[in-house]
Amino acid sequence: MGRVMATNLINAGHSVRVWNRSPAPVDALVAKGATAVATPQDAFAAEAVISMLADDAAVKSAILESGALNAARAGLVHANMATISVSWSQVLVDAHRERGLAYVAAPVFGRPDAAAAATLHIVAAGPSEAIDRVQPLFDALGQKTWRLGDDAPRANVMKIAGNFLIACAIEAMSESAALVQAHGLAPRDLFDMLTSTLFASPIYKNYSGLIVDQRFEPAGFALRLGLKDTRLALAAGEDAHVALPFGSVLRDNFLDAIAHGDADRDWTAVAKVALRRAGLGATETGSV
Amino acid sequence: MGRVMATNLINAGHSVRVWNRSPAPVDALVAKGATAVATPQDAFAAEAVISMLADDAAVKSAILESGALNAARAGLVHANMATISVSWSQVLVDAHRERGLAYVAAPVFGRPDAAAAATLHIVAAGPSEAIDRVQPLFDALGQKTWRLGDDAPRANVMKIAGNFLIACAIEAMSESAALVQAHGLAPRDLFDMLTSTLFASPIYKNYSGLIVDQRFEPAGFALRLGLKDTRLALAAGEDAHVALPFGSVLRDNFLDAIAHGDADRDWTAVAKVALRRAGLGATETGSV
Amino acid sequence: MGRVMATNLINAGHSVRVWNRSPAPVDALVAKGATAVATPQDAFAAEAVISMLADDAAVKSAILESGALNAARAGLVHANMATISVSWSQVLVDAHRERGLAYVAAPVFGRPDAAAAATLHIVAAGPSEAIDRVQPLFDALGQKTWRLGDDAPRANVMKIAGNFLIACAIEAMSESAALVQAHGLAPRDLFDMLTSTLFASPIYKNYSGLIVDQRFEPAGFALRLGLKDTRLALAAGEDAHVALPFGSVLRDNFLDAIAHGDADRDWTAVAKVALRRAGLGATETGSV
Amino acid sequence: MGRVMATNLINAGHSVRVWNRSPAPVDALVAKGATAVATPQDAFAAEAVISMLADDAAVKSAILESGALNAARAGLVHANMATISVSWSQVLVDAHRERGLAYVAAPVFGRPDAAAAATLHIVAAGPSEAIDRVQPLFDALGQKTWRLGDDAPRANVMKIAGNFLIACAIEAMSESAALVQAHGLAPRDLFDMLTSTLFASPIYKNYSGLIVDQRFEPAGFALRLGLKDTRLALAAGEDAHVALPFGSVLRDNFLDAIAHGDADRDWTAVAKVALRRAGLGATETGSV
Repeated sequence: MGRVMATNLINAGHSVRVWNRSPAPVDALVAKGATAVATPQDAFAAEAVISMLADDAAVKSAILESGALNAARAGLVHANMATISVSWSQVLVDAHRERGLAYVAAPVFGRPDAAAAATLHIVAAGPSEAIDRVQPLFDALGQKTWRLGDDAPRANVMKIAGNFLIACAIEAMSESAALVQAHGLAPRDLFDMLTSTLFASPIYKNYSGLIVDQRFEPAGFALRLGLKDTRLALAAGEDAHVALPFGSVLRDNFLDAIAHGDADRDWTAVAKVALRRAGLGATETGSV
Repeated sequence: MGRVMATNLINAGHSVRVWNRSPAPVDALVAKGATAVATPQDAFAAEAVISMLADDAAVKSAILESGALNAARAGLVHANMATISVSWSQVLVDAHRERGLAYVAAPVFGRPDAAAAATLHIVAAGPSEAIDRVQPLFDALGQKTWRLGDDAPRANVMKIAGNFLIACAIEAMSESAALVQAHGLAPRDLFDMLTSTLFASPIYKNYSGLIVDQRFEPAGFALRLGLKDTRLALAAGEDAHVALPFGSVLRDNFLDAIAHGDADRDWTAVAKVALRRAGLGATETGSV
Repeated sequence: MGRVMATNLINAGHSVRVWNRSPAPVDALVAKGATAVATPQDAFAAEAVISMLADDAAVKSAILESGALNAARAGLVHANMATISVSWSQVLVDAHRERGLAYVAAPVFGRPDAAAAATLHIVAAGPSEAIDRVQPLFDALGQKTWRLGDDAPRANVMKIAGNFLIACAIEAMSESAALVQAHGLAPRDLFDMLTSTLFASPIYKNYSGLIVDQRFEPAGFALRLGLKDTRLALAAGEDAHVALPFGSVLRDNFLDAIAHGDADRDWTAVAKVALRRAGLGATETGSV
Repeated sequence: MGRVMATNLINAGHSVRVWNRSPAPVDALVAKGATAVATPQDAFAAEAVISMLADDAAVKSAILESGALNAARAGLVHANMATISVSWSQVLVDAHRERGLAYVAAPVFGRPDAAAAATLHIVAAGPSEAIDRVQPLFDALGQKTWRLGDDAPRANVMKIAGNFLIACAIEAMSESAALVQAHGLAPRDLFDMLTSTLFASPIYKNYSGLIVDQRFEPAGFALRLGLKDTRLALAAGEDAHVALPFGSVLRDNFLDAIAHGDADRDWTAVAKVALRRAGLGATETGSV
């Protein structure tokens, strides 16, 4: 994601400096006009920073423990576009405030192809003047920015809730596909009808196609990241004493899928769990 | 449902004879041009019968135990448009076959307003010549008939799986609404974004609106019927040894809702369960 | 169960007439001194009837539809010792009352070896004078009768709740066995400690032994009956709007087990589900 | 727990130095003969250290970040008797090994009254010579030490699995109590029968008593700690890709209980969740 997003920033004419743990993506971006920097500190010596790190632990290491914030240029705006936990988002709010830096949480909806096409949906929260300042960058990355007010962690809650809804849709399609297949129907027929009527939306159309075709590679979004995001939803629920029984089922089933070797396949591969538990072969999933 | 559907048949110029347990809907239809009949047997003395009964027990009583099939006119086609169990659909297939009658399972997708507007989606399975014969009736009732082959119970499986997907969407929205509300966000903001993008489909748009507005009366589809349909999905799963863990959560939550007095409210009222379990008041659900 | 219980009645000196669907068990009992009868009606021409039928459907067929109750001797007491649903128990209460017959619900706790040793625990509800009359029979069958008052279905609720607790204990042991095995420990070590301390009870001792040894054949209680009894618990819950989320998990896992060929193995074979879902081989379950 | 355990060590004649975050328990122990020390470092200047901290975070702060291990006397054996995560136990194994110190994981089974009576069951893993050296301390604290080999985290897995089994028993009793109460029976009658027969073990006897009497204060083990331990079980499961569906239900229900104000009541107060969801009043729980 980070690489294609940086490419869009370069293509939009911005001066981009790049840091990454592993060098390969950096080299590709340098070939397109970016400047490589050696440390997170160097990256934060800028007007604005866009960060897109894997998870809470990567954020902690690269942004807090690296000392990057201490090296930040005065007036810097940091837009963190990764999907991280609500509680870590608050840690970052506090760490920036202590140093007089502006922090914007701006996670995105969209798979890598949407990132490449700059059609992401960006959910942004933080001080409005800070969002204003990075809005030109967001415009180069996505088709729309949804602003959610001053409180940065709210953007993370929204992103987590959105991914939770997607995961629930995948599991619901998986169970119903197993149900109809077990009764001799083609899941394709079920989804052809429903995704052209009641469920005529991108999530149901695209993901039911992946499930029906058992097209789990290459992964648009890896199943182990689906587990990570489910964990974020459960943690956000736990912080506020909200039980999420669908989330509990998702967690169990993603673990089952990972135990069967599907961690790096697309998260729609969780559909294999319902089939396997019912003693149904994956190869029978296609249209009859 | 039955009343508005009969009205559409009358309006389309068909000669309609009506039987119902309670007389009030019959009188209204007679005023529009239908002929009232006293027994199910009388209703089956026709070229075609459309039945729309509440559940398996009503079907058993009105169609099998009443002796209606024994009184049926030779060559009759019976299109059963109710949502009944897969196993009872098979019982009806057999009972019709023994008597040389044609049986079509033709459950519908759509709430009462869609029935009134004749925009239902009809899922039909049964002998193709029998479906051909009642197709003009279906054309007066819905916008499209989806044909699923000769084996009538398959239409019931499809209907049950479709309703299961809708119920899962409702529960997923309910849990995510509770999650964001507990973190100080408005569920409305979550759904505004998602139902204009990833989840831009009728089910998510309409039902999220009911949930956000807590508009559970009048019921478009009563919650106790939502439990009934979940039971049908679980039973269909059990027949084929398919575990449906989302279905189990739905069942538990519909029971919780009924224990709290919501049996006759719209099935989206199950959204109150997630709020109540989290100690959140329903009145806080609106936009902040 | 029925055969060993009838043997105990014969051994206690009672005059026993036997009816059964299939003749083999009858012949064995006749060899021990019982008299065979040809129909349920003949069986009900007695002072007392002990029935031990498989499920609601068998009760309906053999006792109601057969006309047996209409042939019953005046003053007869019928003690139904089978595990049936709460709602069917009420149907039987009403059917006996209409005919002036006494009905006692008296399900039992204990596996076949306990039945053979006449050490069953009997849970009895019904009119106290009726229970008094069959108490000598109960004394020949079990070690203790637990009386629960006049309302027969309460005995069924108690039996269903008891079996539900046993099933929950089996599932809890199964999940914890998978957990410790996945971390390199022997489930045997876990259960050796716990069943000699906190969980020093017959259920945990016996069933953990079956799980650790993977000794699922011969079945003391078949897994498909475990599913049946879970269904009875869920139905009793549904009648009273009580969600049983552990019951829902049990149902899902018994279905998973049946889909993998374990319907006729002991119900502790549900332990294979947790292992299989975790990608762990059953053969590794023994002590390390 | 820590205070009564230290008292037992003093009573057994050991020379005890005490450190605690808050001073009150320390003063009480000093009155009994202990020596107060100001820092964890001082505590680790000893032959052996028994630690009993609240959770992973407390262990991290008091033992790692405090520098206590760096101040440890050569040859020290540290027995960590707290219930912590499997992954943190491994962190501690490594931290001790680097410094040439001996680490024993020795969590305990037993509520405060068992700790006071020195009848705890201790589950110990670590180098056998290290366990030998602290065995006299364990003998002053518990009635039996169960040794599980050299690998310290295994003791934590065992403790976590044991507490998971207890939590499952509590939830199973809670659901069955709600079920029988909803059908007009007294939960007391159910448990009187079962805990004197199939479930005649301390856990079922004691905890069913608390549930039947709704005796949730004072807390023998606080519900928020029950959630913590369930989280440890789920995390241990996640580390090894083991789905624990009963654990997921426990987590949801503990959250529900906490959202309703029961965090500091005994963890058996989770029984109120099943009653509340079924619309049943807690006051009806007693014997009818």
